[in-house]
Amino acid sequence: MLRLLDDVRAGVVAPGEAARRIAALPDAESIGATVIDHHRELRTGIPEIVFGERKTAEQIAAALRELAREGGAIATRIDPAKADALRALVPEIHVDALSRVAALGAPRMRPAAATIAVVCAGTSDLSVAEEAAQVAEFLGAPVVRVTDVGVAGLHRLLARLDDIRRAEVVIAIAGMEAALPSVLGGLLDRPLIAVPTSVGYGVSLDGLVALGSLLSACAPGITVVNIDNGVGAAVAAVRVARLAVPR
Amino acid sequence: MLRLLDDVRAGVVAPGEAARRIAALPDAESIGATVIDHHRELRTGIPEIVFGERKTAEQIAAALRELAREGGAIATRIDPAKADALRALVPEIHVDALSRVAALGAPRMRPAAATIAVVCAGTSDLSVAEEAAQVAEFLGAPVVRVTDVGVAGLHRLLARLDDIRRAEVVIAIAGMEAALPSVLGGLLDRPLIAVPTSVGYGVSLDGLVALGSLLSACAPGITVVNIDNGVGAAVAAVRVARLAVPR
Amino acid sequence: MLRLLDDVRAGVVAPGEAARRIAALPDAESIGATVIDHHRELRTGIPEIVFGERKTAEQIAAALRELAREGGAIATRIDPAKADALRALVPEIHVDALSRVAALGAPRMRPAAATIAVVCAGTSDLSVAEEAAQVAEFLGAPVVRVTDVGVAGLHRLLARLDDIRRAEVVIAIAGMEAALPSVLGGLLDRPLIAVPTSVGYGVSLDGLVALGSLLSACAPGITVVNIDNGVGAAVAAVRVARLAVPR
Amino acid sequence: MLRLLDDVRAGVVAPGEAARRIAALPDAESIGATVIDHHRELRTGIPEIVFGERKTAEQIAAALRELAREGGAIATRIDPAKADALRALVPEIHVDALSRVAALGAPRMRPAAATIAVVCAGTSDLSVAEEAAQVAEFLGAPVVRVTDVGVAGLHRLLARLDDIRRAEVVIAIAGMEAALPSVLGGLLDRPLIAVPTSVGYGVSLDGLVALGSLLSACAPGITVVNIDNGVGAAVAAVRVARLAVPR
Amino acid sequence: MLRLLDDVRAGVVAPGEAARRIAALPDAESIGATVIDHHRELRTGIPEIVFGERKTAEQIAAALRELAREGGAIATRIDPAKADALRALVPEIHVDALSRVAALGAPRMRPAAATIAVVCAGTSDLSVAEEAAQVAEFLGAPVVRVTDVGVAGLHRLLARLDDIRRAEVVIAIAGMEAALPSVLGGLLDRPLIAVPTSVGYGVSLDGLVALGSLLSACAPGITVVNIDNGVGAAVAAVRVARLAVPR
Amino acid sequence: MLRLLDDVRAGVVAPGEAARRIAALPDAESIGATVIDHHRELRTGIPEIVFGERKTAEQIAAALRELAREGGAIATRIDPAKADALRALVPEIHVDALSRVAALGAPRMRPAAATIAVVCAGTSDLSVAEEAAQVAEFLGAPVVRVTDVGVAGLHRLLARLDDIRRAEVVIAIAGMEAALPSVLGGLLDRPLIAVPTSVGYGVSLDGLVALGSLLSACAPGITVVNIDNGVGAAVAAVRVARLAVPR
Amino acid sequence: MLRLLDDVRAGVVAPGEAARRIAALPDAESIGATVIDHHRELRTGIPEIVFGERKTAEQIAAALRELAREGGAIATRIDPAKADALRALVPEIHVDALSRVAALGAPRMRPAAATIAVVCAGTSDLSVAEEAAQVAEFLGAPVVRVTDVGVAGLHRLLARLDDIRRAEVVIAIAGMEAALPSVLGGLLDRPLIAVPTSVGYGVSLDGLVALGSLLSACAPGITVVNIDNGVGAAVAAVRVARLAVPR
Amino acid sequence: MLRLLDDVRAGVVAPGEAARRIAALPDAESIGATVIDHHRELRTGIPEIVFGERKTAEQIAAALRELAREGGAIATRIDPAKADALRALVPEIHVDALSRVAALGAPRMRPAAATIAVVCAGTSDLSVAEEAAQVAEFLGAPVVRVTDVGVAGLHRLLARLDDIRRAEVVIAIAGMEAALPSVLGGLLDRPLIAVPTSVGYGVSLDGLVALGSLLSACAPGITVVNIDNGVGAAVAAVRVARLAVPR
Repeated sequence: MLRLLDDVRAGVVAPGEAARRIAALPDAESIGATVIDHHRELRTGIPEIVFGERKTAEQIAAALRELAREGGAIATRIDPAKADALRALVPEIHVDALSRVAALGAPRMRPAAATIAVVCAGTSDLSVAEEAAQVAEFLGAPVVRVTDVGVAGLHRLLARLDDIRRAEVVIAIAGMEAALPSVLGGLLDRPLIAVPTSVGYGVSLDGLVALGSLLSACAPGITVVNIDNGVGAAVAAVRVARLAVPR
Repeated sequence: MLRLLDDVRAGVVAPGEAARRIAALPDAESIGATVIDHHRELRTGIPEIVFGERKTAEQIAAALRELAREGGAIATRIDPAKADALRALVPEIHVDALSRVAALGAPRMRPAAATIAVVCAGTSDLSVAEEAAQVAEFLGAPVVRVTDVGVAGLHRLLARLDDIRRAEVVIAIAGMEAALPSVLGGLLDRPLIAVPTSVGYGVSLDGLVALGSLLSACAPGITVVNIDNGVGAAVAAVRVARLAVPR
Repeated sequence: MLRLLDDVRAGVVAPGEAARRIAALPDAESIGATVIDHHRELRTGIPEIVFGERKTAEQIAAALRELAREGGAIATRIDPAKADALRALVPEIHVDALSRVAALGAPRMRPAAATIAVVCAGTSDLSVAEEAAQVAEFLGAPVVRVTDVGVAGLHRLLARLDDIRRAEVVIAIAGMEAALPSVLGGLLDRPLIAVPTSVGYGVSLDGLVALGSLLSACAPGITVVNIDNGVGAAVAAVRVARLAVPR
Repeated sequence: MLRLLDDVRAGVVAPGEAARRIAALPDAESIGATVIDHHRELRTGIPEIVFGERKTAEQIAAALRELAREGGAIATRIDPAKADALRALVPEIHVDALSRVAALGAPRMRPAAATIAVVCAGTSDLSVAEEAAQVAEFLGAPVVRVTDVGVAGLHRLLARLDDIRRAEVVIAIAGMEAALPSVLGGLLDRPLIAVPTSVGYGVSLDGLVALGSLLSACAPGITVVNIDNGVGAAVAAVRVARLAVPR
Repeated sequence: MLRLLDDVRAGVVAPGEAARRIAALPDAESIGATVIDHHRELRTGIPEIVFGERKTAEQIAAALRELAREGGAIATRIDPAKADALRALVPEIHVDALSRVAALGAPRMRPAAATIAVVCAGTSDLSVAEEAAQVAEFLGAPVVRVTDVGVAGLHRLLARLDDIRRAEVVIAIAGMEAALPSVLGGLLDRPLIAVPTSVGYGVSLDGLVALGSLLSACAPGITVVNIDNGVGAAVAAVRVARLAVPR
Repeated sequence: MLRLLDDVRAGVVAPGEAARRIAALPDAESIGATVIDHHRELRTGIPEIVFGERKTAEQIAAALRELAREGGAIATRIDPAKADALRALVPEIHVDALSRVAALGAPRMRPAAATIAVVCAGTSDLSVAEEAAQVAEFLGAPVVRVTDVGVAGLHRLLARLDDIRRAEVVIAIAGMEAALPSVLGGLLDRPLIAVPTSVGYGVSLDGLVALGSLLSACAPGITVVNIDNGVGAAVAAVRVARLAVPR
Repeated sequence: MLRLLDDVRAGVVAPGEAARRIAALPDAESIGATVIDHHRELRTGIPEIVFGERKTAEQIAAALRELAREGGAIATRIDPAKADALRALVPEIHVDALSRVAALGAPRMRPAAATIAVVCAGTSDLSVAEEAAQVAEFLGAPVVRVTDVGVAGLHRLLARLDDIRRAEVVIAIAGMEAALPSVLGGLLDRPLIAVPTSVGYGVSLDGLVALGSLLSACAPGITVVNIDNGVGAAVAAVRVARLAVPR
Repeated sequence: MLRLLDDVRAGVVAPGEAARRIAALPDAESIGATVIDHHRELRTGIPEIVFGERKTAEQIAAALRELAREGGAIATRIDPAKADALRALVPEIHVDALSRVAALGAPRMRPAAATIAVVCAGTSDLSVAEEAAQVAEFLGAPVVRVTDVGVAGLHRLLARLDDIRRAEVVIAIAGMEAALPSVLGGLLDRPLIAVPTSVGYGVSLDGLVALGSLLSACAPGITVVNIDNGVGAAVAAVRVARLAVPR
């Protein structure tokens, strides 16, 4: 089935044409209650990534095994208890404690992508930043990590600007008042995707203030994803980064 | 001053280097209360676009005249009364009634950019869609307009999919429940920037529900800008579209 | 007492007349702190369904036993711990893990009803969908289940349209951005009841965005119940489905 | 084109089949910026109803004229100034001041529908109630109006119960604390669609409290539409009322 | 000290005069971190009632012992674990499981008060209703309890109206859509204090919808206290009930 | 009709009995779209007070004339333009500019009531305070007005305490942070009804913060009505003040 | 009366002692509905500043005249129409169009105060900034204005840092995402008072996002006043600036 | 490195000059995932204070050890379990149970500061009050604690006014309706920083009502920090208190 994907990439089959053909095929393989969408990568260029938060370890393990049959697969939001349960079910699954990303198998070859910078202010945002970085790498994009550059210590951010400018796309992770992307937005000329985080307390409202702050940023051209949504930022950045590689 | 911009584009001066030099120069020219930032394009690749909503016709006209000295300039959110006042002040200013964009002079040459599709559901979203389209064109990107493709008449959207796929970047404008970008997100493999609009009534909350809906979309990779923010979507899309042109 | 119910159905007693008579009778039987309303079915056509979330296992068991004296009875929102406690108290109680519905005894004969389709997008909404489906079945309506038809994979939804159209009433369950009912609303000509779910994170606000999205849907004729309220949707759908059966 | 509609109703063409055919046809006729969807009635059983709030008198008049070519047409939310402008453009247009509904031509024959009761509490809700009633009548359903039955004067509501019970479907309109549908929900055995209104002040929050109150109602089986959405309630009620007529 | 209280009641000392005198005295006795305000009853007619939710069992026990030196004392919001701890510390403390009220000693004589009716709809509101009832009794007012009279079963409420009318003041407890006080407000001619409860789910927002509903009630003369605030309702009702007794 | 009212007051007819009888009578007289409820005073002790905000001058004048047939009548929320229109229609109508209350005829005799104190902090709250005071006087209660006693000038409040204590019931009006009722609540031993006002700006949220502040007040026994609801406070206070008069 | 003020400043009378004495005096002079608090400056060091938004020109003029009897007086939030009306009433009143501050007479001598820097990002915040600056100057503090230093053009802010550091207290005005105070907070070692403004649109929520952002700022030591509250910031800053002057 | 700090304080190096130099140095020492900012005190006058809520005991202990190398260090929000873990790791760490502040080593000499009063109403706010007090003391300011002065017992507050007036800066802690700072604001002439607390229930919304109440306070000159943010209030107060000491 995934050969069609390669044909599309090679230009042998037009995407519109391919999409129409696929609709006629039985495409979903049921694994217990979880249904795997093998066609998603064909349609959207991005394979299914398992959202682990509301699934049992059994459901996640089954989904990863099924998805990994044609290359590696990953799942997100795996807390320590679920990580243990996953490894008990499938010892080959590796879970990264900081990003809470579980991986099974090596990712298959994907289209080349330009470099993505993942920038964050402090230790509290690291978990979301790593989720974004590892998902981007899984999708085939090289990643530059720039951490500890909050605006409360501006000189550090300025010192890392040239590193950030080496990437073609920037993901900026920010909680609390989320000032980092605003400052970056005035210094950069490339696509900038911001991720508000739920870090904070009191009036931070679980990230809603950071979200509102990012959407209100006066530096134009910043786009935003949902609170703590490292996966969404990574997928959006990879789509951009693929465009930046001449074909 | 703008020659430096061309040097940077030609690769003669590194952006980081240029930015540092600029900081030492007097860069803002005061026009009454409005200050023009001529360096912005150098730093961010995007010239200043005048946000007309909270400015008087006099302030807008002065800003457009100053900005237009080195190429064309535009202002947004120009309602009919302000449009009349602007034309009385500077007869050369042209105001588009639908998009509410005012323009003075022809835009200067800018870096090549790939095509952007601007997609919206209905007549109520047309104003924001046109703002996005005209700003993108001003910044040098060709635009494909696809309107009247709301999900309540799905066959029309499917009929226009190949047109949409011809663009490298997609801006989707959507009010009320904002289902259009979700549906598109499952059908496309390219960057998709969504603009919630304030169209609606009752629980629509002036666009907050559309915004929340877009940020919650289950199709990953959609990024979002502020409510009715056609300018922001255009700037973000142009940054991406420039990357898609091999240099 | 319930013979009056049959008289009303047979047309021997007018509902208004019956309601007036009932008011004079002692109608509530107290079981500890829980009071059972045996007349409710007479007045509203729907028997009492025990809402289990804020009741102890003892209260639920007592209520089910009392209600089941004249036919089967069900309770909803029974989590695994409560399920164990219920079965320890009354071994005949059966609890369905997915829907969290507990049942005791076989449902009594109820008025004929047309078929109801219960449609949902993904695994996360299955629990609410099953609650709706099982309550509808308990109330005497045949149910068609259509799952895994989220708008992110539109071809699957289109492939199941004829199945959905075979039902006279449709319940659509949707979390996150809740685009499914909007798309369905533009494709169907029958009553469509939407249930927002609390699935999501960040700006999803525990289902409030899905709720707002459904209420703002541009396809007219969609009605909505409270977040996660599978019971309410089922009761509303059954009332409609009974009308669709000629008498 | 609309002959196909009659064929479908006559059972000569299956709806699914018809829908597929239609997708291949050019179906939208552009009238300036407004596009008319002549197929909507075929797909959904409900013709396009013009939402007048954000349209100019010229757009509304053009849309009504186009839609009325194959039967009557209506538009909603026509304030007095727009009503005058409409009548100046098309003298045949009639605007009802209370409901703010504009009509052109006599409605075409539509499928038979059972009676709908439109119930409201007070003078403040009358406008929304009449919008619902007149849209329902336009769609072919007989309507019983029951007004001035707020729960603050309970005896009046009880005195009208038999009138309400004569209808097969009930629309209940309620602002402020919106207690009326809750009380009705405990007295009726038929489908009950509730419309919150924006009547109120202070903490009423433009109808959000009434909306929340209706969604939280403890009488199961009440479904809800957006604030002030008389059209949506009417469309939903007509879909149900058509089912109640044996074919 | 409390003799002054009796003097005031006997009219020997004017309240204003007494209050001024008291301000000069050392009035707070420190018990660990908890400070007891023995003068409060003199100033406000109501003794200190210990709010147990954020205090340890040790703090509550010490406060009750100190307050009980001149008559009985009570504490509220005592969950089962705290109840056990309290009884271990002071075996004479009695905790009522339903109302979560802890009591030590018999209440002292207080001014006569008229009867208060405490009315609620269902089992879920019983806990708040009992808190209100027991606090009112502690303060010296006779209480009539009327439960299970929700508006979804209107005949039951009507059947109990004469009981309710026998009281001079009415406290109505209501969660979810909180329709009960609205209905009562149209049937009674006496002071009506409403308590919204946090019972509900989804859009009920932990009682905020019930609160908004009560404040928006169209029956004038209903006053409202904070969500679940049985104590506040009881204190307010007792102040009224004391007025109703001729002196 | 109103003789029954006097019979009830004289104890010749029991209220419950009277209420049942009334339900059988035709009780509403329609005046155009406005329906007058002549029985309300019998059931609730309070006559209908016309809420003028959403009614035309014609509707208000007609309602006042009808209600005034058996004594005086009042309407609230009459802005200057409506006041002029009212006087043009019925020259006998008097409108008070500060309270925005319109009155026609002298109020009929009503049951005796104790004195009510209406207390407010500043000039901004005077309008709501006067509405409360005049409605209370219309309902037969003597009123003491205490203004300009905000907590920012505490000595003034303390200087007026004895005046306030001369009343049996207190209405406290407060906008912004609404601290006045909290301070009063700790100084008084009588029923205290608080009215939040919409005075303020920024985070005051049109009175929502004042409302929340009042409901959270730590002085127990304060009850609250909707924002700016002077009528509601007056009705509630009068019900209490009537109890305080021995019969 | 104001001689007491000078005595207090000279140390002849202790503030506590003075405050107690004052409470016994008649202190408020009534000017129509507006009451002037001549003692406020004695108690709090700050004279009454007239909040013009909800007052008529007549009330404002009378208050200014009364307050100006012992030195100058100012009023805020004077829009152009009110400014014209004020000048017609009292030609000596001067109104500044940008800050909307009206002044009558020269301010009296006040305690010395250190310099205050008023910093803002753009033209939209200038009005609030000028209100803060002019109130501070009226209260006797020298002011340094630093405008056009938004974080979207960081080099400009850095270029003005030494100017800002010359002041002892800093007021930072910021709308939209309000990043400026966060950046400043990491660069300065002096008291920093932030004023959120209502500038913005869409999700900016009339300044609530800016407010939340400032309260969530990770640079500790920033304090915040209400949205657009230039007066409050000025008063707070002056209190600090007076402390910074050795006495 | 910290010698530069002393040079700056001694006036040998200008702060602006120093800040520029520092930017060139490697300044962050990485301790596992936690990075210590040794320069912060130089730039802002305030050393890093470890926010313990989202850090492990290991991270906190490492940070305290590193920070304490040049004087004492503190961490906040240390719950009992974390306190035990900290002491197991570094026995020299002392944790105060009430304030939840952990301290290691004696604070280094810091600039002299005037006295700060920390004022709160009741036992529930004591934890936040103590956090503020201990942080202020750690930063070198003497602190006067005034507790149990809620406005519900006004005489106690008035009795402590002279104590409060002995301090140059006041921190007022208040939950629920947060009336205390409003009352204080009308009685004091010095800087007043208010801290809303999350104490309360129901509509208190975890401190949002207290926050809004404080920001809306009519006594001008009150500034506010985030909910429960004792550290922020202390830092702001210390900055002010240092200014009040002549140098």
